[in-house]
Amino acid sequence: MCQLLGMNCNTPTDIVFSFTGFATRADEHKDGFGIAFFEGPGVRCFVDHHSASSSPVAEMVKRYPIRSCNVISHIRKATQGRVALENTHPFERELWGRYWVFAHNGDLKDFHPKLHAAFHPVGSTDSERAFCWILQELAKNHASLPSIEHLTETLRELAEPIARHGTFNFLLSHGDALWAHASTQLHWLVREHPFTHARLQDEDLTVNFADVTTPNDRVAVIVTEPLTAGEAWQAFGAGELKVFHDGRPLAA
Amino acid sequence: MCQLLGMNCNTPTDIVFSFTGFATRADEHKDGFGIAFFEGPGVRCFVDHHSASSSPVAEMVKRYPIRSCNVISHIRKATQGRVALENTHPFERELWGRYWVFAHNGDLKDFHPKLHAAFHPVGSTDSERAFCWILQELAKNHASLPSIEHLTETLRELAEPIARHGTFNFLLSHGDALWAHASTQLHWLVREHPFTHARLQDEDLTVNFADVTTPNDRVAVIVTEPLTAGEAWQAFGAGELKVFHDGRPLAA
Repeated sequence: MCQLLGMNCNTPTDIVFSFTGFATRADEHKDGFGIAFFEGPGVRCFVDHHSASSSPVAEMVKRYPIRSCNVISHIRKATQGRVALENTHPFERELWGRYWVFAHNGDLKDFHPKLHAAFHPVGSTDSERAFCWILQELAKNHASLPSIEHLTETLRELAEPIARHGTFNFLLSHGDALWAHASTQLHWLVREHPFTHARLQDEDLTVNFADVTTPNDRVAVIVTEPLTAGEAWQAFGAGELKVFHDGRPLAA
Repeated sequence: MCQLLGMNCNTPTDIVFSFTGFATRADEHKDGFGIAFFEGPGVRCFVDHHSASSSPVAEMVKRYPIRSCNVISHIRKATQGRVALENTHPFERELWGRYWVFAHNGDLKDFHPKLHAAFHPVGSTDSERAFCWILQELAKNHASLPSIEHLTETLRELAEPIARHGTFNFLLSHGDALWAHASTQLHWLVREHPFTHARLQDEDLTVNFADVTTPNDRVAVIVTEPLTAGEAWQAFGAGELKVFHDGRPLAA
Protein backbone atom coordinates (compact mmCIF):
# COMPACT_ATOMS: atom_id res chain seq x y z
CA MET A 1 0.00 0.00 0.00
CA CYS A 2 1.05 3.55 -0.63
CA GLN A 3 0.96 6.41 1.81
CA LEU A 4 -0.47 9.91 1.48
CA LEU A 5 0.49 13.22 3.03
CA GLY A 6 -1.41 16.48 2.55
CA MET A 7 -1.12 19.95 4.00
CA ASN A 8 -3.55 22.89 3.82
CA CYS A 9 -2.67 26.20 5.50
CA ASN A 10 -3.89 29.75 5.88
CA THR A 11 -0.31 31.07 5.41
CA PRO A 12 2.31 29.62 3.05
CA THR A 13 4.18 27.11 5.20
CA ASP A 14 7.06 24.77 4.51
CA ILE A 15 6.46 21.04 4.87
CA VAL A 16 10.08 20.05 5.55
CA PHE A 17 9.36 18.65 9.05
CA SER A 18 6.38 16.52 8.04
CA PHE A 19 7.93 15.41 4.74
CA THR A 20 11.10 14.33 6.53
CA GLY A 21 9.09 12.00 8.76
CA PHE A 22 6.95 10.83 5.87
CA ALA A 23 9.95 10.07 3.63
CA THR A 24 11.41 7.82 6.32
CA ARG A 25 8.56 5.42 5.62
CA ALA A 26 9.74 5.11 2.06
CA ASP A 27 11.92 2.10 2.83
CA GLU A 28 8.79 -0.01 2.64
CA HIS A 29 7.41 2.14 -0.19
CA LYS A 30 10.29 2.10 -2.60
CA ASP A 31 8.49 2.39 -5.94
CA GLY A 32 8.72 6.14 -6.29
CA PHE A 33 7.48 9.24 -4.58
CA GLY A 34 6.06 12.59 -5.55
CA ILE A 35 5.21 15.90 -3.97
CA ALA A 36 3.23 18.80 -5.43
CA PHE A 37 3.35 22.34 -4.04
CA PHE A 38 0.83 24.98 -5.01
CA GLU A 39 2.14 28.52 -4.97
CA GLY A 40 -0.80 30.75 -5.82
CA PRO A 41 -2.45 29.16 -8.87
CA GLY A 42 0.92 27.76 -9.96
CA VAL A 43 2.03 24.29 -8.97
CA ARG A 44 5.23 22.36 -9.08
CA CYS A 45 5.35 18.67 -8.79
CA PHE A 46 8.60 16.86 -7.97
CA VAL A 47 8.52 13.15 -8.71
CA ASP A 48 11.06 10.37 -8.83
CA HIS A 49 10.79 6.65 -9.45
CA HIS A 50 13.45 6.17 -6.82
CA SER A 51 12.48 5.82 -3.18
CA ALA A 52 11.98 9.01 -1.17
CA SER A 53 14.62 7.73 1.23
CA SER A 54 17.37 7.71 -1.44
CA SER A 55 16.18 10.02 -4.22
CA PRO A 56 18.23 13.17 -4.94
CA VAL A 57 14.91 14.88 -5.66
CA ALA A 58 13.59 14.03 -2.18
CA GLU A 59 16.88 15.22 -0.71
CA MET A 60 16.41 18.59 -2.41
CA VAL A 61 12.80 18.82 -1.14
CA LYS A 62 13.97 18.16 2.43
CA ARG A 63 16.53 20.96 2.20
CA TYR A 64 14.66 23.61 0.23
CA PRO A 65 11.84 25.12 2.30
CA ILE A 66 9.20 25.75 -0.34
CA ARG A 67 6.31 27.66 1.25
CA SER A 68 2.89 26.57 0.10
CA CYS A 69 -0.75 26.64 1.26
CA ASN A 70 -1.58 23.30 -0.39
CA VAL A 71 0.76 20.32 -0.64
CA ILE A 72 0.07 16.74 -1.70
CA SER A 73 2.67 13.99 -1.39
CA HIS A 74 2.64 10.27 -2.06
CA ILE A 75 5.06 7.41 -1.54
CA ARG A 76 4.36 4.41 -3.69
CA LYS A 77 4.38 0.66 -3.38
CA ALA A 78 3.17 -0.47 -6.76
CA THR A 79 0.00 -2.55 -6.90
CA GLN A 80 -1.19 -1.71 -10.42
CA GLY A 81 0.97 -0.32 -13.23
CA ARG A 82 4.72 -0.86 -13.59
CA VAL A 83 7.26 1.25 -11.70
CA ALA A 84 7.65 4.12 -14.14
CA LEU A 85 7.46 7.87 -14.13
CA GLU A 86 4.05 7.97 -15.83
CA ASN A 87 2.59 5.92 -12.96
CA THR A 88 4.04 8.07 -10.19
CA HIS A 89 1.64 10.18 -8.08
CA PRO A 90 0.61 12.97 -7.70
CA PHE A 91 -1.05 13.38 -11.11
CA GLU A 92 -1.70 16.83 -12.49
CA ARG A 93 -4.20 18.25 -15.00
CA GLU A 94 -5.73 21.62 -15.83
CA LEU A 95 -9.48 22.34 -15.68
CA TRP A 96 -11.19 25.78 -15.84
CA GLY A 97 -7.78 27.47 -15.97
CA ARG A 98 -6.74 25.89 -12.65
CA TYR A 99 -4.28 23.11 -11.99
CA TRP A 100 -5.62 20.06 -10.17
CA VAL A 101 -3.43 17.59 -8.31
CA PHE A 102 -4.46 14.12 -7.17
CA ALA A 103 -2.88 11.24 -5.25
CA HIS A 104 -4.47 7.93 -4.29
CA ASN A 105 -3.82 5.19 -1.81
CA GLY A 106 -5.60 1.92 -2.41
CA ASP A 107 -6.54 -0.44 -5.15
CA LEU A 108 -9.58 -0.24 -7.44
CA LYS A 109 -10.76 -3.48 -9.02
CA ASP A 110 -12.40 -3.50 -12.44
CA PHE A 111 -12.59 0.26 -12.64
CA HIS A 112 -12.69 1.15 -16.33
CA PRO A 113 -14.99 4.17 -16.66
CA LYS A 114 -15.90 5.62 -20.02
CA LEU A 115 -13.46 8.44 -20.75
CA HIS A 116 -14.67 10.34 -23.77
CA ALA A 117 -13.79 13.92 -22.89
CA ALA A 118 -10.63 15.93 -22.38
CA PHE A 119 -8.91 13.80 -19.74
CA HIS A 120 -7.10 10.59 -20.59
CA PRO A 121 -4.57 8.64 -18.55
CA VAL A 122 -0.96 8.60 -19.75
CA GLY A 123 0.09 5.74 -17.48
CA SER A 124 -1.64 2.50 -16.56
CA THR A 125 -2.82 2.97 -12.97
CA ASP A 126 -6.35 2.70 -11.61
CA SER A 127 -5.55 5.94 -9.75
CA GLU A 128 -4.96 8.07 -12.85
CA ARG A 129 -8.14 6.61 -14.41
CA ALA A 130 -10.10 7.66 -11.33
CA PHE A 131 -8.59 11.17 -11.47
CA CYS A 132 -9.42 11.57 -15.17
CA TRP A 133 -12.99 10.41 -14.59
CA ILE A 134 -13.44 12.80 -11.64
CA LEU A 135 -12.26 15.76 -13.74
CA GLN A 136 -14.44 14.72 -16.68
CA GLU A 137 -17.48 14.56 -14.41
CA LEU A 138 -16.63 17.84 -12.63
CA ALA A 139 -16.43 19.50 -16.06
CA LYS A 140 -19.81 17.98 -16.99
CA ASN A 141 -21.43 19.20 -13.76
CA HIS A 142 -20.10 22.76 -13.74
CA ALA A 143 -19.54 25.13 -16.67
CA SER A 144 -16.87 27.11 -14.83
CA LEU A 145 -15.05 26.98 -11.51
CA PRO A 146 -17.71 26.57 -8.79
CA SER A 147 -17.42 27.46 -5.10
CA ILE A 148 -15.62 25.09 -2.75
CA GLU A 149 -19.00 24.09 -1.29
CA HIS A 150 -20.42 23.12 -4.69
CA LEU A 151 -17.25 21.27 -5.60
CA THR A 152 -17.47 19.35 -2.34
CA GLU A 153 -21.06 18.29 -3.05
CA THR A 154 -20.13 17.04 -6.51
CA LEU A 155 -17.00 15.27 -5.28
CA ARG A 156 -19.01 13.48 -2.61
CA GLU A 157 -21.32 12.15 -5.32
CA LEU A 158 -18.39 11.10 -7.51
CA ALA A 159 -16.28 9.43 -4.81
CA GLU A 160 -19.01 7.04 -3.75
CA PRO A 161 -19.35 4.97 -6.97
CA ILE A 162 -15.55 4.79 -7.38
CA ALA A 163 -15.11 3.61 -3.79
CA ARG A 164 -17.36 0.62 -4.56
CA HIS A 165 -14.46 -0.72 -6.66
CA GLY A 166 -12.08 -1.01 -3.73
CA THR A 167 -9.95 1.10 -1.43
CA PHE A 168 -10.16 4.76 -2.33
CA ASN A 169 -8.22 7.01 0.01
CA PHE A 170 -7.32 10.14 -1.94
CA LEU A 171 -6.14 13.74 -1.72
CA LEU A 172 -7.17 16.34 -4.30
CA SER A 173 -6.43 20.06 -4.53
CA HIS A 174 -6.85 22.93 -6.96
CA GLY A 175 -4.64 25.25 -4.97
CA ASP A 176 -7.37 26.83 -2.88
CA ALA A 177 -8.93 23.91 -1.00
CA LEU A 178 -7.76 20.37 -0.32
CA TRP A 179 -10.20 17.44 -0.37
CA ALA A 180 -9.46 14.20 1.44
CA HIS A 181 -11.50 11.02 1.12
CA ALA A 182 -11.02 7.88 3.16
CA SER A 183 -12.17 4.34 2.56
CA THR A 184 -9.96 2.68 5.10
CA GLN A 185 -7.17 4.79 6.54
CA LEU A 186 -6.53 8.51 6.82
CA HIS A 187 -5.82 10.80 9.77
CA TRP A 188 -5.84 14.55 10.23
CA LEU A 189 -5.13 17.31 12.70
CA VAL A 190 -4.99 21.08 12.83
CA ARG A 191 -1.96 22.86 14.25
CA GLU A 192 -2.82 26.30 15.59
CA HIS A 193 -2.13 28.72 18.42
CA PRO A 194 -1.03 27.86 21.13
CA PHE A 195 1.55 25.76 19.27
CA THR A 196 3.38 22.98 21.08
CA HIS A 197 6.22 20.52 20.56
CA ALA A 198 5.85 17.51 18.31
CA ARG A 199 8.17 14.57 17.88
CA LEU A 200 8.35 12.62 14.62
CA GLN A 201 7.44 8.99 15.21
CA ASP A 202 9.80 7.74 12.51
CA GLU A 203 12.87 9.88 13.18
CA ASP A 204 14.52 11.26 16.26
CA LEU A 205 13.45 14.82 15.42
CA THR A 206 11.46 17.25 17.55
CA VAL A 207 10.12 20.64 16.56
CA ASN A 208 8.59 23.39 18.65
CA PHE A 209 6.06 24.85 16.25
CA ALA A 210 5.84 27.97 18.47
CA ASP A 211 9.38 28.83 17.29
CA VAL A 212 8.54 28.71 13.59
CA THR A 213 5.02 30.15 13.46
CA THR A 214 3.05 33.28 14.27
CA PRO A 215 -0.12 33.16 16.41
CA ASN A 216 -2.28 33.55 13.31
CA ASP A 217 -0.88 30.53 11.45
CA ARG A 218 -3.11 27.51 11.06
CA VAL A 219 -2.08 24.28 9.35
CA ALA A 220 -4.11 21.15 8.65
CA VAL A 221 -2.15 17.96 8.04
CA ILE A 222 -3.72 14.85 6.53
CA VAL A 223 -1.77 11.61 6.46
CA THR A 224 -2.27 7.86 6.15
CA GLU A 225 -0.76 7.12 9.56
CA PRO A 226 -0.10 9.72 12.31
CA LEU A 227 3.33 11.30 11.84
CA THR A 228 3.98 12.51 15.37
CA ALA A 229 3.65 11.52 18.98
CA GLY A 230 2.03 14.02 21.34
CA GLU A 231 -0.52 15.43 18.94
CA ALA A 232 -4.24 14.67 18.72
CA TRP A 233 -4.62 12.92 15.36
CA GLN A 234 -8.19 12.07 14.38
CA ALA A 235 -9.17 9.17 12.15
CA PHE A 236 -11.46 9.60 9.14
CA GLY A 237 -14.57 7.49 9.05
CA ALA A 238 -15.11 4.96 6.25
CA GLY A 239 -16.49 6.78 3.22
CA GLU A 240 -15.83 10.22 4.72
CA LEU A 241 -14.91 13.19 2.50
CA LYS A 242 -13.51 16.30 4.18
CA VAL A 243 -12.57 19.60 2.61
CA PHE A 244 -9.84 21.75 4.14
CA HIS A 245 -9.55 25.49 3.51
CA ASP A 246 -7.38 28.08 5.26
CA GLY A 247 -5.91 25.37 7.49
CA ARG A 248 -9.06 23.81 8.88
CA PRO A 249 -11.89 21.48 7.82
CA LEU A 250 -15.05 23.14 6.57
CA ALA A 251 -18.35 21.96 8.06
CA ALA A 252 -19.88 19.08 6.10
CA MET B 1 14.41 37.96 -23.87
CA CYS B 2 14.32 34.42 -22.61
CA GLN B 3 16.44 31.57 -23.81
CA LEU B 4 15.51 28.06 -24.91
CA LEU B 5 17.35 24.74 -24.78
CA GLY B 6 16.05 21.49 -26.22
CA MET B 7 17.50 18.01 -26.64
CA ASN B 8 16.22 15.07 -28.69
CA CYS B 9 18.14 11.76 -28.68
CA ASN B 10 17.93 8.20 -29.92
CA THR B 11 19.16 6.91 -26.53
CA PRO B 12 18.28 8.36 -23.11
CA THR B 13 21.03 10.89 -22.46
CA ASP B 14 21.74 13.24 -19.59
CA ILE B 15 21.77 16.96 -20.31
CA VAL B 16 24.03 17.97 -17.42
CA PHE B 17 26.80 19.36 -19.66
CA SER B 18 24.52 21.49 -21.85
CA PHE B 19 22.31 22.60 -18.96
CA THR B 20 25.36 23.70 -16.98
CA GLY B 21 26.38 26.02 -19.79
CA PHE B 22 22.83 27.17 -20.36
CA ALA B 23 22.21 27.94 -16.66
CA THR B 24 25.27 30.21 -16.62
CA ARG B 25 23.34 32.58 -18.83
CA ALA B 26 20.72 32.90 -16.15
CA ASP B 27 22.40 35.94 -14.60
CA GLU B 28 20.76 38.01 -17.28
CA HIS B 29 17.62 35.85 -17.19
CA LYS B 30 16.81 35.92 -13.52
CA ASP B 31 13.02 35.60 -13.57
CA GLY B 32 12.82 31.85 -13.18
CA PHE B 33 13.78 28.74 -15.06
CA GLY B 34 12.29 25.39 -15.88
CA ILE B 35 13.32 22.07 -17.36
CA ALA B 36 11.12 19.16 -18.42
CA PHE B 37 12.43 15.62 -18.94
CA PHE B 38 10.41 12.97 -20.73
CA GLU B 39 11.06 9.44 -19.59
CA GLY B 40 8.95 7.21 -21.80
CA PRO B 41 5.49 8.77 -21.84
CA GLY B 42 6.08 10.18 -18.35
CA VAL B 43 7.45 13.65 -17.84
CA ARG B 44 8.81 15.60 -14.95
CA CYS B 45 9.12 19.30 -14.97
CA PHE B 46 11.34 21.12 -12.48
CA VAL B 47 10.62 24.83 -12.24
CA ASP B 48 11.67 27.63 -9.94
CA HIS B 49 11.01 31.34 -9.90
CA HIS B 50 14.56 31.84 -8.76
CA SER B 51 17.34 32.19 -11.31
CA ALA B 52 18.89 29.00 -12.68
CA SER B 53 22.24 30.31 -11.44
CA SER B 54 21.14 30.33 -7.77
CA SER B 55 18.13 27.99 -7.53
CA PRO B 56 18.45 24.84 -5.38
CA VAL B 57 16.30 23.11 -7.98
CA ALA B 58 18.78 23.99 -10.75
CA GLU B 59 21.61 22.82 -8.51
CA MET B 60 19.88 19.43 -8.14
CA VAL B 61 19.35 19.19 -11.92
CA LYS B 62 23.07 19.87 -12.54
CA ARG B 63 24.05 17.07 -10.15
CA TYR B 64 21.44 14.41 -10.88
CA PRO B 65 21.99 12.89 -14.34
CA ILE B 66 18.41 12.25 -15.46
CA ARG B 67 18.51 10.34 -18.75
CA SER B 68 15.91 11.40 -21.26
CA CYS B 69 15.26 11.34 -25.01
CA ASN B 70 13.40 14.66 -24.99
CA VAL B 71 14.24 17.64 -22.82
CA ILE B 72 12.97 21.22 -22.96
CA SER B 73 14.42 23.99 -20.80
CA HIS B 74 13.80 27.71 -20.52
CA ILE B 75 15.37 30.57 -18.63
CA ARG B 76 13.12 33.57 -18.27
CA LYS B 77 13.41 37.32 -18.41
CA ALA B 78 9.83 38.42 -17.93
CA THR B 79 8.24 40.50 -20.69
CA GLN B 80 4.56 39.64 -20.10
CA GLY B 81 3.08 38.24 -16.90
CA ARG B 82 4.48 38.79 -13.41
CA VAL B 83 7.33 36.70 -12.00
CA ALA B 84 5.35 33.83 -10.52
CA LEU B 85 5.29 30.08 -10.68
CA GLU B 86 2.21 29.95 -12.93
CA ASN B 87 4.08 32.02 -15.54
CA THR B 88 7.22 29.88 -15.53
CA HIS B 89 7.97 27.77 -18.62
CA PRO B 90 7.85 24.99 -19.72
CA PHE B 91 4.09 24.56 -19.61
CA GLU B 92 2.57 21.09 -19.55
CA ARG B 93 -0.81 19.66 -20.60
CA GLU B 94 -2.24 16.27 -21.57
CA LEU B 95 -3.83 15.53 -24.95
CA TRP B 96 -4.75 12.10 -26.37
CA GLY B 97 -3.28 10.41 -23.29
CA ARG B 98 0.13 12.01 -23.90
CA TYR B 99 1.85 14.81 -22.03
CA TRP B 100 2.84 17.86 -24.08
CA VAL B 101 5.49 20.32 -23.00
CA PHE B 102 6.00 23.80 -24.46
CA ALA B 103 8.42 26.69 -23.95
CA HIS B 104 8.52 30.00 -25.80
CA ASN B 105 11.02 32.74 -26.38
CA GLY B 106 9.64 36.00 -27.68
CA ASP B 107 6.78 38.36 -27.27
CA LEU B 108 3.33 38.14 -28.92
CA LYS B 109 1.38 41.38 -29.24
CA ASP B 110 -2.44 41.36 -29.13
CA PHE B 111 -2.67 37.61 -29.19
CA HIS B 112 -5.98 36.69 -27.57
CA PRO B 113 -7.31 33.65 -29.44
CA LYS B 114 -10.72 32.20 -28.71
CA LEU B 115 -10.22 29.40 -26.21
CA HIS B 116 -13.48 27.48 -25.87
CA ALA B 117 -12.25 23.92 -25.48
CA ALA B 118 -10.33 21.92 -22.91
CA PHE B 119 -7.20 24.07 -22.60
CA HIS B 120 -7.13 27.29 -20.62
CA PRO B 121 -4.17 29.26 -19.32
CA VAL B 122 -3.57 29.29 -15.57
CA GLY B 123 -1.08 32.16 -15.68
CA SER B 124 -1.08 35.40 -17.64
CA THR B 125 1.56 34.94 -20.34
CA ASP B 126 1.14 35.20 -24.09
CA SER B 127 3.17 31.97 -24.23
CA GLU B 128 0.70 29.83 -22.29
CA ARG B 129 -2.15 31.28 -24.38
CA ALA B 130 -0.32 30.21 -27.54
CA PHE B 131 0.28 26.72 -26.13
CA CYS B 132 -3.40 26.30 -25.16
CA TRP B 133 -4.52 27.46 -28.60
CA ILE B 134 -2.10 25.08 -30.35
CA LEU B 135 -3.42 22.10 -28.33
CA GLN B 136 -7.03 23.12 -28.91
CA GLU B 137 -6.42 23.29 -32.66
CA LEU B 138 -4.45 20.02 -32.72
CA ALA B 139 -7.39 18.34 -30.96
CA LYS B 140 -9.77 19.84 -33.53
CA ASN B 141 -7.65 18.63 -36.45
CA HIS B 142 -7.01 15.07 -35.27
CA ALA B 143 -9.34 12.69 -33.42
CA SER B 144 -6.47 10.72 -31.90
CA LEU B 145 -2.68 10.89 -31.79
CA PRO B 146 -1.48 11.29 -35.41
CA SER B 147 1.92 10.42 -36.86
CA ILE B 148 4.83 12.81 -36.36
CA GLU B 149 4.56 13.78 -40.04
CA HIS B 150 0.89 14.73 -39.74
CA LEU B 151 1.52 16.61 -36.50
CA THR B 152 4.31 18.53 -38.21
CA GLU B 153 2.02 19.57 -41.06
CA THR B 154 -0.63 20.82 -38.63
CA LEU B 155 1.90 22.60 -36.43
CA ARG B 156 3.34 24.38 -39.46
CA GLU B 157 -0.15 25.70 -40.27
CA LEU B 158 -0.73 26.76 -36.66
CA ALA B 159 2.63 28.46 -36.04
CA GLU B 160 2.30 30.83 -38.96
CA PRO B 161 -0.72 32.89 -37.77
CA ILE B 162 0.67 33.08 -34.22
CA ALA B 163 4.05 34.28 -35.49
CA ARG B 164 2.32 37.25 -37.13
CA HIS B 165 1.79 38.60 -33.60
CA GLY B 166 5.48 38.90 -32.82
CA THR B 167 8.50 36.80 -32.00
CA PHE B 168 7.62 33.14 -31.75
CA ASN B 169 10.61 30.91 -31.11
CA PHE B 170 9.31 27.79 -29.41
CA LEU B 171 10.07 24.19 -28.45
CA LEU B 172 7.32 21.58 -28.17
CA SER B 173 7.48 17.86 -27.41
CA HIS B 174 5.13 14.97 -26.65
CA GLY B 175 7.94 12.67 -25.60
CA ASP B 176 8.54 11.09 -28.98
CA ALA B 177 9.47 14.00 -31.23
CA LEU B 178 10.59 17.56 -30.53
CA TRP B 179 9.41 20.49 -32.67
CA ALA B 180 11.36 23.73 -32.86
CA HIS B 181 10.11 26.89 -34.53
CA ALA B 182 12.14 30.04 -35.04
CA SER B 183 11.04 33.57 -35.80
CA THR B 184 14.31 35.26 -35.00
CA GLN B 185 16.89 33.17 -33.22
CA LEU B 186 17.44 29.44 -32.76
CA HIS B 187 20.41 27.16 -33.49
CA TRP B 188 20.81 23.42 -33.71
CA LEU B 189 23.36 20.67 -34.19
CA VAL B 190 23.54 16.89 -34.13
CA ARG B 191 26.23 15.14 -32.10
CA GLU B 192 27.02 11.70 -33.46
CA HIS B 193 29.85 9.29 -34.15
CA PRO B 194 32.76 10.14 -34.40
CA PHE B 195 32.30 12.26 -31.27
CA THR B 196 34.75 15.04 -30.49
CA HIS B 197 35.57 17.52 -27.76
CA ALA B 198 33.40 20.51 -27.05
CA ARG B 199 34.08 23.48 -24.81
CA LEU B 200 31.26 25.42 -23.16
CA GLN B 201 31.32 29.05 -24.23
CA ASP B 202 30.03 30.29 -20.89
CA GLU B 203 32.05 28.17 -18.47
CA ASP B 204 35.54 26.79 -18.44
CA LEU B 205 34.33 23.26 -18.98
CA THR B 206 35.31 20.81 -21.73
CA VAL B 207 33.82 17.42 -22.43
CA ASN B 208 35.00 14.66 -24.75
CA PHE B 209 31.71 13.18 -25.90
CA ALA B 210 33.58 10.06 -27.08
CA ASP B 211 34.17 9.21 -23.41
CA VAL B 212 30.51 9.32 -22.46
CA THR B 213 28.76 7.87 -25.51
CA THR B 214 28.57 4.73 -27.61
CA PRO B 215 29.02 4.84 -31.41
CA ASN B 216 25.26 4.43 -31.92
CA ASP B 217 24.25 7.47 -29.83
CA ARG B 218 22.85 10.47 -31.62
CA VAL B 219 21.82 13.70 -29.93
CA ALA B 220 20.24 16.82 -31.42
CA VAL B 221 20.59 20.02 -29.40
CA ILE B 222 18.51 23.12 -30.12
CA VAL B 223 19.34 26.36 -28.35
CA THR B 224 18.80 30.11 -28.67
CA GLU B 225 22.53 30.86 -28.92
CA PRO B 226 25.27 28.28 -29.58
CA LEU B 227 26.46 26.70 -26.32
CA THR B 228 29.89 25.52 -27.37
CA ALA B 229 32.94 26.53 -29.33
CA GLY B 230 34.31 24.01 -31.83
CA GLU B 231 31.00 22.59 -33.01
CA ALA B 232 29.10 23.33 -36.21
CA TRP B 233 25.92 25.06 -35.00
CA GLN B 234 23.41 25.90 -37.71
CA ALA B 235 20.97 28.79 -37.56
CA PHE B 236 17.23 28.33 -38.19
CA GLY B 237 15.72 30.44 -40.94
CA ALA B 238 12.97 32.95 -40.13
CA GLY B 239 9.64 31.10 -39.90
CA GLU B 240 11.31 27.69 -40.03
CA LEU B 241 9.77 24.72 -38.19
CA LYS B 242 11.92 21.63 -37.72
CA VAL B 243 10.97 18.33 -36.14
CA PHE B 244 13.60 16.17 -34.43
CA HIS B 245 13.19 12.45 -33.87
CA ASP B 246 15.77 9.88 -32.74
CA GLY B 247 18.39 12.59 -32.46
CA ARG B 248 18.16 14.15 -35.90
CA PRO B 249 15.93 16.46 -37.92
CA LEU B 250 13.37 14.78 -40.18
CA ALA B 251 13.17 15.96 -43.78
CA ALA B 252 10.70 18.82 -44.23
